[in-house]
Amino acid sequence: MLQIIREVTVRFCEVDAMHIVWHGHYIKYLEDGREEFARQYGLGYHLLEKAGYGIPLVKLDIDYRRAARYGDTLTVETRFVPSATPRICFEYCIRHAETRQVVCTARTTQVFTDAHLQLQLLAPPCFTEWQQRWLPSPALLA
Amino acid sequence: MLQIIREVTVRFCEVDAMHIVWHGHYIKYLEDGREEFARQYGLGYHLLEKAGYGIPLVKLDIDYRRAARYGDTLTVETRFVPSATPRICFEYCIRHAETRQVVCTARTTQVFTDAHLQLQLLAPPCFTEWQQRWLPSPALLA
Amino acid sequence: MLQIIREVTVRFCEVDAMHIVWHGHYIKYLEDGREEFARQYGLGYHLLEKAGYGIPLVKLDIDYRRAARYGDTLTVETRFVPSATPRICFEYCIRHAETRQVVCTARTTQVFTDAHLQLQLLAPPCFTEWQQRWLPSPALLA
Amino acid sequence: MLQIIREVTVRFCEVDAMHIVWHGHYIKYLEDGREEFARQYGLGYHLLEKAGYGIPLVKLDIDYRRAARYGDTLTVETRFVPSATPRICFEYCIRHAETRQVVCTARTTQVFTDAHLQLQLLAPPCFTEWQQRWLPSPALLA
Repeated sequence: MLQIIREVTVRFCEVDAMHIVWHGHYIKYLEDGREEFARQYGLGYHLLEKAGYGIPLVKLDIDYRRAARYGDTLTVETRFVPSATPRICFEYCIRHAETRQVVCTARTTQVFTDAHLQLQLLAPPCFTEWQQRWLPSPALLA
Repeated sequence: MLQIIREVTVRFCEVDAMHIVWHGHYIKYLEDGREEFARQYGLGYHLLEKAGYGIPLVKLDIDYRRAARYGDTLTVETRFVPSATPRICFEYCIRHAETRQVVCTARTTQVFTDAHLQLQLLAPPCFTEWQQRWLPSPALLA
Repeated sequence: MLQIIREVTVRFCEVDAMHIVWHGHYIKYLEDGREEFARQYGLGYHLLEKAGYGIPLVKLDIDYRRAARYGDTLTVETRFVPSATPRICFEYCIRHAETRQVVCTARTTQVFTDAHLQLQLLAPPCFTEWQQRWLPSPALLA
Repeated sequence: MLQIIREVTVRFCEVDAMHIVWHGHYIKYLEDGREEFARQYGLGYHLLEKAGYGIPLVKLDIDYRRAARYGDTLTVETRFVPSATPRICFEYCIRHAETRQVVCTARTTQVFTDAHLQLQLLAPPCFTEWQQRWLPSPALLA
């Protein structure tokens, strides 16, 4: 299972009048998770951009379970979910670092486009190579 | 059908290196839609806060269909979705104002809490009254 | 005097735990002011970008005088300040729309770069033409 | 000299269409610097809030020198500037971590208010104690 864990600390400017993280700011934490995944496993904007591709999000689902507050340390678990079609899927679980209580869970789907944002129906070679390196057994693909 | 339409214009600071609106900024457009709904129909943070309640989001789903660019004018259609349980559900459709092409669709769910963020299992009286005023026939509830 | 007035309404996600607009969000209101100036007078990112130039900010000063709260309507007065050197300077005054009380004042300076972000020591022709159209008397330049 | 150094990495969502960090996002980096200062020296929102005070910004000045790009690692030097009047002043220098080249410099001023945002003309006792601990010689105050 390809997964990373990244810590984030809630900023003062990220909590709202109810003193909890405004729901929209979690999108940045998910991006922080994907960035850390890119650093550790090499799959991210840099790899694709260098090869002439974009990877825009086409789907985002978040379930909010518990509040997080200013100064809280959270962990962003980010797990790569293999897919039979040419896309990049991640599942996330954000927890309070200390108690391990779940703050929210999320899923994102990204597709491949060329530099002009035209959808690519075939996976870019650099992604295929990445998959062969990290996910050697195609039989395991969902 | 309780629905509003709100126009938003894409800011320079909302587009990313691919020259398209970064996916996280759409969360603000959805909030703009709910704000306009609150202005026209009275259901929003102000009504609930005055009565001592919070309405945090517990669920957010977005499907991105087309890109939007700096300077584009978008319309945010925001539709109240009646629910049999005590929660506030909205469906959204964001379109290019001129061509009516769909940029993204979304759904949000908010629950009722007291001022200390404790979940309320019964709908607040102010919400029940609001429903009776705007949704007179409970038989129509989904 | 080249000036525009633009209204903005404070979003829920823009106020912090003290229930006032977080100081960083005013930067967006200033950009909203410049955008409105661009719409009315034609001087903005679109004009310069089409001609192959960038106009990054090199200086920003803000003085915060009064708080603004969720739902407040503010007016962003944005005034072009002529300059003897090739740069774009604006002064701003953000007020509560109703009481006219000053919320903050600000100043920004933008310089001209080429598409590779190299500083341009001479003003782009499109800016010179814009100045000749809107500021016919160079003797008035500061 | 009371100073901290904090590293930040530029996020994908923080760069604009010119592929450089949008100027408004630096305000968050400055807040990151103050947060780190609070962690190391104890002077921050938490200390003041617990004692019933707010510390809103009243002044912000930024000079932008060089661009920063997606993935860049920056260091935020944050230095406490003693003041003869009851306020909290910081100076900042943001640099490229590797080359030490200056990206921007900044200054902020915060004042003390009570919980209702009324300006306090006398410094709160907790701040006076903090100063006595960390800045023992008042003769050094500017």
